[in-house]
Amino acid sequence: MEDSYSFAERGSTEQVEEGHAFAPKFDADGLVTCVTSDASTGEILMVAHMNAEALARTIAHGEAWYFSRSRRRLWRKGETSGHIQRVVEMRVDCDQDAVWIKVEQAGPGACHTGRRSCFYRAVPLGKDPDAALTLQFRDDKAFDPHAVYGAKAK
Amino acid sequence: MEDSYSFAERGSTEQVEEGHAFAPKFDADGLVTCVTSDASTGEILMVAHMNAEALARTIAHGEAWYFSRSRRRLWRKGETSGHIQRVVEMRVDCDQDAVWIKVEQAGPGACHTGRRSCFYRAVPLGKDPDAALTLQFRDDKAFDPHAVYGAKAK
Repeated sequence: MEDSYSFAERGSTEQVEEGHAFAPKFDADGLVTCVTSDASTGEILMVAHMNAEALARTIAHGEAWYFSRSRRRLWRKGETSGHIQRVVEMRVDCDQDAVWIKVEQAGPGACHTGRRSCFYRAVPLGKDPDAALTLQFRDDKAFDPHAVYGAKAK
Repeated sequence: MEDSYSFAERGSTEQVEEGHAFAPKFDADGLVTCVTSDASTGEILMVAHMNAEALARTIAHGEAWYFSRSRRRLWRKGETSGHIQRVVEMRVDCDQDAVWIKVEQAGPGACHTGRRSCFYRAVPLGKDPDAALTLQFRDDKAFDPHAVYGAKAK
């Protein structure tokens, strides 16, 4: 597969922020940050990264592709689990180093731990600086990750 | 100001993903990614970064602090504009390298360009790989950035 967009060159700050050209700012590792939310509930499902190829495939096919930093490879969301993400809308931020996709999440969840969202724990606020911070679980597992992903859930 | 939490040490994958200890994974630059959404509408307002000090101050004071990569300094959101962000809830993701804060945004907007959200442009989907991508503006300016930030809007 060869989905390679000729993304625009980075211009002046004015061009990047107020222009109509899509000129993503890839970091030193060739990645932009992607925030993925549920198109119907607005819940943030995950934060991941896209290289140019993942970004191009996501745009072309309307399904989320990412680049896994830990596995150093392109990754079609749902390739193992079937929990694909159909992209309803993609937005880019002012300096174009982050995209936001609103998706229809197939299956019970986006997180490899078995939850609907990766953000299943809350951090307590207003604590004294030296207090221990105890995370509060907010979401139950929606599926069994071992059944879906096999022994090494990922 | 010295708000320094003793964040937990990173443990096993199981401990990081299923535990109650807050053990943020700071990257090589000492940063975690922060996604900030509007607590009432769910709209994503911005994506930024926090170092340990910004994270500690945000938790302690319930107001968003970030670390500006371009200016290499700690940054209290709204310090110039008055557009502070009161944090209603903070979540952390499975591998603890990203946090999500739901905020009450003071003033007309979060973006230094004058919009409510930094994600004011949509990227067209389903385009041929070689087609030029024309961004579509979705938000009008909510305030005049030059009036709020001075000549060098930031």
